Amino acid sequence: MHLGVGVSIKVAIVGGTHGNELSGIQLLKQWQADASVIERPGLSVTTLFGNPSAHQANRRYLDVDLNRQFAPELLTDASLGNYEQNRAKVINGLLGPKGASQTDLVIDLHNTTSNMGPTLILVDTTPWDSQLAAFVKSRMPEAVILVEDAKPAHEWGYLCTVGKRGVMVEVGPQSQSVLRHDILEEMAMMTGLILDFVALEAQGELPPLPQSVEAYRFLDTRYLPLDAQGEPLAMVHKSLEQNDFTELKPGEPMFQYFDGTVGVFDGDRPLYPHFINEAAYYDSHAAFSLAEKLELMVPKA
Amino acid sequence: MHLGVGVSIKVAIVGGTHGNELSGIQLLKQWQADASVIERPGLSVTTLFGNPSAHQANRRYLDVDLNRQFAPELLTDASLGNYEQNRAKVINGLLGPKGASQTDLVIDLHNTTSNMGPTLILVDTTPWDSQLAAFVKSRMPEAVILVEDAKPAHEWGYLCTVGKRGVMVEVGPQSQSVLRHDILEEMAMMTGLILDFVALEAQGELPPLPQSVEAYRFLDTRYLPLDAQGEPLAMVHKSLEQNDFTELKPGEPMFQYFDGTVGVFDGDRPLYPHFINEAAYYDSHAAFSLAEKLELMVPKA
Repeated sequence: MHLGVGVSIKVAIVGGTHGNELSGIQLLKQWQADASVIERPGLSVTTLFGNPSAHQANRRYLDVDLNRQFAPELLTDASLGNYEQNRAKVINGLLGPKGASQTDLVIDLHNTTSNMGPTLILVDTTPWDSQLAAFVKSRMPEAVILVEDAKPAHEWGYLCTVGKRGVMVEVGPQSQSVLRHDILEEMAMMTGLILDFVALEAQGELPPLPQSVEAYRFLDTRYLPLDAQGEPLAMVHKSLEQNDFTELKPGEPMFQYFDGTVGVFDGDRPLYPHFINEAAYYDSHAAFSLAEKLELMVPKA
Repeated sequence: MHLGVGVSIKVAIVGGTHGNELSGIQLLKQWQADASVIERPGLSVTTLFGNPSAHQANRRYLDVDLNRQFAPELLTDASLGNYEQNRAKVINGLLGPKGASQTDLVIDLHNTTSNMGPTLILVDTTPWDSQLAAFVKSRMPEAVILVEDAKPAHEWGYLCTVGKRGVMVEVGPQSQSVLRHDILEEMAMMTGLILDFVALEAQGELPPLPQSVEAYRFLDTRYLPLDAQGEPLAMVHKSLEQNDFTELKPGEPMFQYFDGTVGVFDGDRPLYPHFINEAAYYDSHAAFSLAEKLELMVPKA
């Protein structure tokens, strides 16, 4: 993303993609009142309220999850016309179009009810992504780096993929419709570090970075076991509760069945649950996601 | 509540009074499948799903908060006919009528997103209430006793006041629409202890109880400061977050204003915040409730 003098890098920060995740919405308000906080040399930073109608209704979304509507085949299908499907097409026009984007970087701000701390979600593992991860982690050791590269970045339905590059800032635990002071600070800090990195990288002024950075790679999602009527037969075992990114070993408790029995983890190696008991995933009966730990190699700047 | 031989005490356990508080709803399912868990000598225990329509919609309520519709003047006003106002009148018929109730005790099960642990809420301070509190606390030391006696019990709009006696079991933290294993266990344990107490008390077999029990008395609710448009100017300060029932001294931080300033507690003595940042109260901009600590004297059984 090195650019010539006088050419600025376009960054869009999106908050409120989910209407009941309040940290990003609040930060947008603050930054709109005082833009100096997100200004950086060489950057042109704009903000966008992703789903104001869902926020008005105090809900994650009105019809469908906006953050799953940005797959290429959905954006180009004019027959998909519910509220969020329309909103995705509008945002694609404002920030994209996906695949030939006018926006160099989209930062999409999210909250989770899970105890995931400040998590930087990458949808790619380019040298730029690895350097960003190393930069953020070196200045914010409590940050978690989560890589979602199970498919090519442009195939995801995530909003941030409308930019040439995209990342998500995911901070929890925070209940839906609640604003936590500590969570707000973590989101502001991580977003500021991303902007710092982009500005320094564009000017060729990146400081020395570690050779590698600890990260987690999303593998798959585990669902609650259901009965014939589609009702859960179990809940997440209490040993996992609040323990996102803590190692889960084969044979350790995973589900507590309502009949009193315990379901154990049947994997063939230790993995790392996250998005544990996330409230937004309850309609799909998702219990948690699983990741492996890896060291992301960081190319020299 | 001492009764003659062969006369059983009627207890009703209500779950799902708020549709997105899942612990009580799950316990009701389990108890309906195996009623032996809630059977006690001399007791006739029934269960009631408070607001199944709100649960179906994955919401606290459809029109208004069901747990505020049981004030006498509301129950008798036929012109109040929205969903929960009707539902309240139906429940009053099923369990009440309030003031001349067929039900000796109503136990209403609730969750909070606040870190209140297992809290037993009393709406009265009769000898029976104090003995119950002492019995529960002596067998479950982590239990919190919260007294809401700012007005006479029958004037409250709470569902549990349709019984001759009523209590609430309030357990958190648990996000709305989520089922936590640890929270479920705490709710089951506290409810079981209440049933134990009622059965023992009715038979005149109460064990010796302590002379007094530590409790908190609700005083009032603090609201976020708002601007002229009704938007919050501040959030709850992070020093309070997750610290329900921890002493707040005059002069200590209470609000973090978005302009960077800190609002301090202006009380004239230390008090105890609870329901801190409760998600369900966000539409009213309630920040937290305040209680004083007291020792409830416990009459000899």
